[in-house]
Amino acid sequence: MADEDIYRKQTFGQKTGFGRRPMLLVVDFVNGFTDPEVFGGGNIAEAVAATVPLLAFFREHELPVAFTRIVYADDGADCGIWCEKVPRLRELTEASPESQVVAALAPLPGELIVRKTQASAFFGTPLAGVLLAKGIDTIVLVGCTTSGCVRATAIDAMSANFRLVVASDCVGDRALGPHEANLFDIGQKYGDLLTAHAIMETLATRAAA
Amino acid sequence: MADEDIYRKQTFGQKTGFGRRPMLLVVDFVNGFTDPEVFGGGNIAEAVAATVPLLAFFREHELPVAFTRIVYADDGADCGIWCEKVPRLRELTEASPESQVVAALAPLPGELIVRKTQASAFFGTPLAGVLLAKGIDTIVLVGCTTSGCVRATAIDAMSANFRLVVASDCVGDRALGPHEANLFDIGQKYGDLLTAHAIMETLATRAAA
Amino acid sequence: MADEDIYRKQTFGQKTGFGRRPMLLVVDFVNGFTDPEVFGGGNIAEAVAATVPLLAFFREHELPVAFTRIVYADDGADCGIWCEKVPRLRELTEASPESQVVAALAPLPGELIVRKTQASAFFGTPLAGVLLAKGIDTIVLVGCTTSGCVRATAIDAMSANFRLVVASDCVGDRALGPHEANLFDIGQKYGDLLTAHAIMETLATRAAA
Amino acid sequence: MADEDIYRKQTFGQKTGFGRRPMLLVVDFVNGFTDPEVFGGGNIAEAVAATVPLLAFFREHELPVAFTRIVYADDGADCGIWCEKVPRLRELTEASPESQVVAALAPLPGELIVRKTQASAFFGTPLAGVLLAKGIDTIVLVGCTTSGCVRATAIDAMSANFRLVVASDCVGDRALGPHEANLFDIGQKYGDLLTAHAIMETLATRAAA
Repeated sequence: MADEDIYRKQTFGQKTGFGRRPMLLVVDFVNGFTDPEVFGGGNIAEAVAATVPLLAFFREHELPVAFTRIVYADDGADCGIWCEKVPRLRELTEASPESQVVAALAPLPGELIVRKTQASAFFGTPLAGVLLAKGIDTIVLVGCTTSGCVRATAIDAMSANFRLVVASDCVGDRALGPHEANLFDIGQKYGDLLTAHAIMETLATRAAA
Repeated sequence: MADEDIYRKQTFGQKTGFGRRPMLLVVDFVNGFTDPEVFGGGNIAEAVAATVPLLAFFREHELPVAFTRIVYADDGADCGIWCEKVPRLRELTEASPESQVVAALAPLPGELIVRKTQASAFFGTPLAGVLLAKGIDTIVLVGCTTSGCVRATAIDAMSANFRLVVASDCVGDRALGPHEANLFDIGQKYGDLLTAHAIMETLATRAAA
Repeated sequence: MADEDIYRKQTFGQKTGFGRRPMLLVVDFVNGFTDPEVFGGGNIAEAVAATVPLLAFFREHELPVAFTRIVYADDGADCGIWCEKVPRLRELTEASPESQVVAALAPLPGELIVRKTQASAFFGTPLAGVLLAKGIDTIVLVGCTTSGCVRATAIDAMSANFRLVVASDCVGDRALGPHEANLFDIGQKYGDLLTAHAIMETLATRAAA
Repeated sequence: MADEDIYRKQTFGQKTGFGRRPMLLVVDFVNGFTDPEVFGGGNIAEAVAATVPLLAFFREHELPVAFTRIVYADDGADCGIWCEKVPRLRELTEASPESQVVAALAPLPGELIVRKTQASAFFGTPLAGVLLAKGIDTIVLVGCTTSGCVRATAIDAMSANFRLVVASDCVGDRALGPHEANLFDIGQKYGDLLTAHAIMETLATRAAA
């Protein structure tokens, strides 16, 4: 039996759709994750490019937007085991060029920027509370890497009971095997997979209604 | 460049080893996840069998052991979006045969049983605090599925700053593609991969020293 | 300067009101906390009595209701430092009479019951996610003790960004000094204080509008 | 019966002592909380002065030290309900003089500084994980205000299963009534109360042993 058939038989992969109010969450699209000499490569540059119109759409429709960055203290006082597992992570500090959101997606004033020290945008951050205060119940997730911070954020979004829609062409990874494998897992267990185009069509139709 | 080479160049996949005090965490080895007609299949039965001697080793050496089960209220009052994504999950209730730990690994009195409603053993549970109170800094992780609750628990274990060792032959999945893909991700980003045999050798050597 | 004047000058104590959708959260009104020979006494019995019509009101208006209970494993495997600080807590187990919700406020099928091992209804529990899934943004808080689990829950409700309204005559404590002191703190820092009667009037007016 | 007698009869107020490894946690001793024109007053200045030798002791004995500050984004993007309850909180930004640790207790390089948006040092912060990675099981707590961020941090420290010792002369509040009431609550339910002098004596004796 093919993997998809096993999952379907066991009731995985149902669509959970959009709720009342979505937010666009842009995970770790920072210079260091688009540079193949640091943590980038693969299809990440294409994912950034595909995110440009989706970000513009959210702003035009006055839907909320948030960004994440990995930021460690300059003196490494908040580095933990993850910085042993992936030592180069500790280069991501408040002022380092590698940890700045890429210019093509630069945050505007009033858009939340979440600093985090772990893979998930929710772990050890105030993100969940900010979403609650804004009445957000649906996260449209883009960013990198699919197998790292996107996957971890997807799990926590579901665990916190947000509806999750991953923009499948707006997430990227340094290597394509893990990218594809993690999209499969997310689609089966944690959220819907839709292209940026399909997301904009759906939200535009709702806005018009 | 092969995936492994990209990851190595970017400093992923360092070994983080064992700390002072390990616990064996047995994730979701319950009847419903070993039965191919419910949520089981693939190599899960083999993973249960490989866990039997590892569990015996921890008990013999008086090292702590904990188990997780997914448990929803009989009336579904605590079901959320995950039960929409995978409807059959809500059959896992306190008394349902599907949600009982498999007989081969039955918990003993005094061994912690964590009831959870999400993928990770840490999300919305008191697990982290119990580990802290016992002075545990290292989690030896077994269970199923590799691509589901094991992966989610691995991310949270790292995020909480535990050292993580996944017993590679004691985790299983209903389909082998996701199993392999998630072992790769975990080994690169969240923990060491060792066979049960290698784990027992390492801990026995330490105990003798 | 009187305490209230210091707080007012420093901008504390603003009213935050009701949001879109309230839930009634009934904290630890269990037999052991109403019995002066266990953890009860003071004005707790009066607080239970005052909660009866408020609970009926929420049910009549089909507004959600949740309850908390402290529940430790029969074998004490999840007891931590709190059970050293207050040893009698470990008597509160799933089946013990002391840990059952009082008969006058017995939960109905479909009403969430949160089992917890710490003071706050949110700590190590799935509560926040369940509230999110139900679209709840406002917690009407009753229970005991004012200086213990009510205070801890009030802080976490605010921290998670829920609007908090404490029903001042529906919270009680074993001793009146701590009861009054904690009502003051909560009113200045974490939520609005209203009588059950005022809460029902406000919600009835909104329902009629 | 006096309050203390009720609590004693119900087994509250046991001593939980020191564990293996303590950290000094300095909560919100920032300029804005020592200035009576902002959030200060009462006995906070005395508490800062009493903390100076305790901080020096921890540094001399190479025991870890951490600090907290409330820090909101310059554009207020992470302000929530708490900033409605206490509007002046949003003045506490990364660069504002009010949110800098007081000069008498200035952090040294390598000492963790936790930025938080809520009362507790643990809520939405990576603190718990950093403590775990350092093997810390005991928190010596100082700071302000006793009825606010100290109380909230004390509850979470206990909930996370750390042993808690509050330096009773190193915590302060803008008003003395809430200060005393919260020390009572903490001593009964969440931690030991010891003077800075007694803490230093205990730790010096242990270090010599």
